[in-house]
Amino acid sequence: VSLDAAAAGRLGTVRVVGTGLLGTSVGLGLRSNGVRVLLSDPSPTALALARDVGAGEPDRADDEPDLIVVASPPDVTAQVVQAELAAHPAATVTDVASVKSGVVAEVAAGGGDLARYVGGHPMAGRERSGPVAARGDLFLGRPWVVCPTASSAPERVEAIRGLAVALGATPVTMTADDHDEAVALISHLPQVASSLVAARLRLAGDPAVSLAGQGLRDLTRIAGSDPMLWAQVLSANAGPVVEVLRAMRADLDGVIEALDALAKEGRAAEADAGPDASGAPGARAVLGHLVADGNVGRDRIPGKHGAPPTSYAVVTAILPDRPGQLGRLFNDIAEAGINVEEFSLEHSPGQQVGLAEVSVLPAVREALETALTQRGWHVVG
Amino acid sequence: VSLDAAAAGRLGTVRVVGTGLLGTSVGLGLRSNGVRVLLSDPSPTALALARDVGAGEPDRADDEPDLIVVASPPDVTAQVVQAELAAHPAATVTDVASVKSGVVAEVAAGGGDLARYVGGHPMAGRERSGPVAARGDLFLGRPWVVCPTASSAPERVEAIRGLAVALGATPVTMTADDHDEAVALISHLPQVASSLVAARLRLAGDPAVSLAGQGLRDLTRIAGSDPMLWAQVLSANAGPVVEVLRAMRADLDGVIEALDALAKEGRAAEADAGPDASGAPGARAVLGHLVADGNVGRDRIPGKHGAPPTSYAVVTAILPDRPGQLGRLFNDIAEAGINVEEFSLEHSPGQQVGLAEVSVLPAVREALETALTQRGWHVVG
Repeated sequence: VSLDAAAAGRLGTVRVVGTGLLGTSVGLGLRSNGVRVLLSDPSPTALALARDVGAGEPDRADDEPDLIVVASPPDVTAQVVQAELAAHPAATVTDVASVKSGVVAEVAAGGGDLARYVGGHPMAGRERSGPVAARGDLFLGRPWVVCPTASSAPERVEAIRGLAVALGATPVTMTADDHDEAVALISHLPQVASSLVAARLRLAGDPAVSLAGQGLRDLTRIAGSDPMLWAQVLSANAGPVVEVLRAMRADLDGVIEALDALAKEGRAAEADAGPDASGAPGARAVLGHLVADGNVGRDRIPGKHGAPPTSYAVVTAILPDRPGQLGRLFNDIAEAGINVEEFSLEHSPGQQVGLAEVSVLPAVREALETALTQRGWHVVG
Repeated sequence: VSLDAAAAGRLGTVRVVGTGLLGTSVGLGLRSNGVRVLLSDPSPTALALARDVGAGEPDRADDEPDLIVVASPPDVTAQVVQAELAAHPAATVTDVASVKSGVVAEVAAGGGDLARYVGGHPMAGRERSGPVAARGDLFLGRPWVVCPTASSAPERVEAIRGLAVALGATPVTMTADDHDEAVALISHLPQVASSLVAARLRLAGDPAVSLAGQGLRDLTRIAGSDPMLWAQVLSANAGPVVEVLRAMRADLDGVIEALDALAKEGRAAEADAGPDASGAPGARAVLGHLVADGNVGRDRIPGKHGAPPTSYAVVTAILPDRPGQLGRLFNDIAEAGINVEEFSLEHSPGQQVGLAEVSVLPAVREALETALTQRGWHVVG
């Protein structure tokens, strides 16, 4: 596994402005391929940390960069891009902000040279932030959206695609508007939904939350995200996000209306109001349609390796909770010559035992069950 | 790992009515501890399948059961409970429906013997259904909610708790109303939210869904659930579910209002309307509060083994996508004497490489990183 050294060799000197998680990760990845990286950050501490972890050297303005990566907070990105375009009149400038239309509009409004600015958005991140959490492989195998405009010079677009390739990412070209609509749907909507559900748990009683299962855990994982960062991201993409949230609210209104009718029907039945009370025509159909529509939508998400979604067969084994069991399990699977497609480990509340769910191609499911059983595993699926 | 044989020995003869996933799993678990299990189902095929997988023998009414488990579809559960109470005047009757107040109200309204009926809800399930998907360990380590009423005879309540223990579950006593409010929050709300988000993906373009990351995948996993079953479940718990959905909609309305104000501000700024246009006071704060409230709610979910939530340290290693790598990884971790708390394997679109995220107690994080690096792993976190 390595980044693309040939692509890195074509980049020239790269200046990184903003040494947080993303900027420092860009520096680390490029440095590992021998690229000269100059670092800049308004915080001397962040700058020193980025240098110390090996992301590059502080920029002393002794030479001109060929390529500038602006990795500032989203709310100042456009300003910084403009300043960099002005200060370095030959350089190609890009940014890594997660919303793109606003940046390009602001740069255009400020008279920035749009031939040399090509926005980008690496689809990568971590739950931790800052230069210490950075890693040179952060972008490995991830999509890196590149957003040229009609004004972009083709060789500048190629330079930014080359940056993505040098860092092991897969460049994906889109307009800024298409990008912003896409992330509203696949990133910002899920964040809002996860936070909305998690927020309902604030005042829940202990007995209620003690019943929580894997479904709730999966759904609220991203609810642990940084509030300030997300306030900026959602603000910056307000138009597309509000559009998709409105569509979701229309569906939610339908569900609430159906449940209201059913709740009234239930109360009427309890009060023994007789057959006239079954007044919720179509309400159950609304609920069924909601879940069925969700089935269809879920099937649109591509599977592993960008391939079309595949249904894997899941084999579940009981796993005693002590060191070495997972190793033993995977050794046994490997000995049987079977490749694991997906894997999850679930622990049961109050029990010193886990359920290991091993997803494999359906064709090898039986072979896996046999192999595990023969090797003494308790297979339960 | 085994079910509780002593508890099983005290159950007597058990009749299971409805041999779908849950009923057949109850039969399998009890049979593995030598309990006599009599099976009944209106479908001869389902009944024969349940017998063939070893869940018990078809009930020929040659002797009386001590305990009856009604595992019929939710919309006929109360009727079946009443019929069983009437047909077997000495037996204790329970059910496994996922909503409880309606069943007890209907049984009471029908004049059923509430001293002998004690409702239950094992918090277990699978994505597959039917007798063939059943497994005797389905309830192992899961909470099994037991809902006595003021009319319940104490020894009947004990019998149902004993059933849960015999199947390896942890009995949790709650009123039916408390149970229904709890599942509205921790199970039915997440299902609706997941389906709502997934439904938005139906008409999304391929470029948009190709950017999907782990967050969207986690959030929409349960969106693959069965529409008909969920229409029944949500209908049966309409009152509590609509209450929590209304609370969520109120939060959503606030978010939409804030984003609307920000979108207008953005359009005004683009039109260069001057400083008067920055008219979205407090809008960013609404967005920040949403995510912050989600942080608080998420932290209420208990961690592994029912313990308080713990922040694990995550160590990420690059994993070539071929058989044997996971085994090698876990062997190396085990050799270092380190216990894995959580594990996830993420594949990158378009790349034959995975990221293995190993969660461990923070105290052993450094030891794990060192151990893996020494053994030739590429640790990136």
